[in-house]
Amino acid sequence: MGLSESFFYTKLAQDGAARAGIYHTPHGDIPTPIFAPVGTQATVKAVTPAQLQELGASLILSNTYHLYLRPGADLVEEMGGLHEFMQWPGPILTDSGGFQVFSLSAIRKIDADGATFKSHIDGSMHRLTPEKSIDIQQKLGSDIIMAFDECAPPNDRAYNEQALERTTAWAQRCLDAKTRPDQALFGIVQGGVFPDLRTQSALWIAAQPFDGSAIGGLSVGESKEEMHSMLDIVLPLLPENKPRYLMGVGSPEDLVNAISRGVDIFDCVLPTRLARHQSAMTLTGRVNMLNAKHAHDPHPIDETCACYACLHFSRAYIRHLISAREMLASTLISIHNLFTLLRLVQLSREAILENRFSSFAQDFLSRYNYPIK
Amino acid sequence: MGLSESFFYTKLAQDGAARAGIYHTPHGDIPTPIFAPVGTQATVKAVTPAQLQELGASLILSNTYHLYLRPGADLVEEMGGLHEFMQWPGPILTDSGGFQVFSLSAIRKIDADGATFKSHIDGSMHRLTPEKSIDIQQKLGSDIIMAFDECAPPNDRAYNEQALERTTAWAQRCLDAKTRPDQALFGIVQGGVFPDLRTQSALWIAAQPFDGSAIGGLSVGESKEEMHSMLDIVLPLLPENKPRYLMGVGSPEDLVNAISRGVDIFDCVLPTRLARHQSAMTLTGRVNMLNAKHAHDPHPIDETCACYACLHFSRAYIRHLISAREMLASTLISIHNLFTLLRLVQLSREAILENRFSSFAQDFLSRYNYPIK
Repeated sequence: MGLSESFFYTKLAQDGAARAGIYHTPHGDIPTPIFAPVGTQATVKAVTPAQLQELGASLILSNTYHLYLRPGADLVEEMGGLHEFMQWPGPILTDSGGFQVFSLSAIRKIDADGATFKSHIDGSMHRLTPEKSIDIQQKLGSDIIMAFDECAPPNDRAYNEQALERTTAWAQRCLDAKTRPDQALFGIVQGGVFPDLRTQSALWIAAQPFDGSAIGGLSVGESKEEMHSMLDIVLPLLPENKPRYLMGVGSPEDLVNAISRGVDIFDCVLPTRLARHQSAMTLTGRVNMLNAKHAHDPHPIDETCACYACLHFSRAYIRHLISAREMLASTLISIHNLFTLLRLVQLSREAILENRFSSFAQDFLSRYNYPIK
Repeated sequence: MGLSESFFYTKLAQDGAARAGIYHTPHGDIPTPIFAPVGTQATVKAVTPAQLQELGASLILSNTYHLYLRPGADLVEEMGGLHEFMQWPGPILTDSGGFQVFSLSAIRKIDADGATFKSHIDGSMHRLTPEKSIDIQQKLGSDIIMAFDECAPPNDRAYNEQALERTTAWAQRCLDAKTRPDQALFGIVQGGVFPDLRTQSALWIAAQPFDGSAIGGLSVGESKEEMHSMLDIVLPLLPENKPRYLMGVGSPEDLVNAISRGVDIFDCVLPTRLARHQSAMTLTGRVNMLNAKHAHDPHPIDETCACYACLHFSRAYIRHLISAREMLASTLISIHNLFTLLRLVQLSREAILENRFSSFAQDFLSRYNYPIK
């Protein structure tokens, strides 16, 4: 099956390698660059769909591995698909399950045909293949679906050679397996930190009739320099007329660095996970909201922010909620963190449209206080 | 100090003993009968103030004992008072702290002057007296404040005699201690399940310049029959022109039974606590949302309900959220349960205004499936 006709990417502006555009989908237009909040188990943790809409989210991501194990793709299909099930009216992207098989399952066995793994929930044994992953994603009914891939440790050359061979064969099988015309299938570039493998993978993905190009296997343990140099190699090889998605990347500095190299789509659990660990994201760095210095502070998390949390609540109140172990703390900081990343991609987009992204990025990166590892 | 001039109760209709009215407060009118969601630690658990407003809450309750221990009344005052701190623009009622001293603190010593107790949070020792309780509530700045009382085990005659003596002396000291004219002080009728003690207490409270009358020490272990007979004794003795508040009562059947006897105000943690234990409240009984029978159910919790949860989400989805331990489950069921109690008092109010409360109550109670103890 060729490209899905109900999806297309319109480039509105290019500034250096940075792109501003619109990705048109059956569930709505996605302004790019965009950050997708992650709803692992068919819910973005601690926020309602109404709150997500209010803070301006357009695309969200959900995880095939998790939904396959619980509640099951058949149930989601029976309930009318993922949009209806989780009541998200906008576009949804699902990953292929590959990454979770390799990262979450303690016991797993990969062969040329697919992966057998033990559920992290109840220890039951399961098998995912390219065909099975596409079948699940077709049942879920997400807008953007991903090819089943193997994500190898980034610095292991032999492993990456073998994994890339499988990923390529599996990507072809995903193209063959896909039948729904109302879904877009993205291929995934792998190859660890090895320029020749990344080049080989990008050229192959670019030549196939995928609806979009994804870059996997980054932000998984390699250095920032390695990530940047892989992006520098891969992005120029990807089709201009299709969206480019950097998987699992979501720190503010990574977003800006990748946008400057031509990435359009991001997703990450970081904003909601940090929120549940009392860490607020701002455009100048992270703030530990439990810090005693906030106890008497009447100011919002971020005085420059217009999210629901910042328009209403003081640092003193949010710190109290954390101390008292109240759920509202996670909700308010999640709303704020998601808003901050959506604001960052929006500011980036405006800068690209106005042909001043390079100075915007430089300003941003010079002001940003990197979290201490 | 006499009655607060910024508060007054307007009775719109009486149907049998049931009353429909408006309690005017500086932070807005409260339609009565009303149910007040409980925000123990300055937040109604799992919901935002915006969600509370959306579901139509008017009065909310917060706990003096909890706020005194954490974050402290001085901090709340410094942050502009409880309305500003928790961003609740409507009326707020605070209890006196008495009930929590007796129910939460493992180590406590009551004397004629007050109560010394050990914090359930960090084991530190504290002392509450009538003057201290009023001082804290004045710092919190809630609209309705409560006299400091002693809540004795309902069936212990000797204890109740002694506790009532203290409660009466303390109520007088609360009247003397109160200085803020923008707060209404309610007295509390105690006396366990003993008609003579309840009568004595009600007559004394009714004769004092309190802004409203509360009934404490019920729904604390006595039988339903005992509760009803105490309400039958107390309510006719309370002033007609002041609101009557039944403390800590919040099951649907208790609400209807107490409204029929002339109660105007209720509060209870039940709707939000049940929500966190997967139990949905409906006008015909409770529903365990984790029950396997909901797994494939595309219907909402309650098809007759217009809350955000019921307008959008299926039982299957909510059950999935519970299984997956997602916070959204608590949020959605809390919204639904609070909406259900607010709907019940609203339906009761309409029935009173239309002079058909008795048949409404009979219909309701005959259809209601009582939870199995």
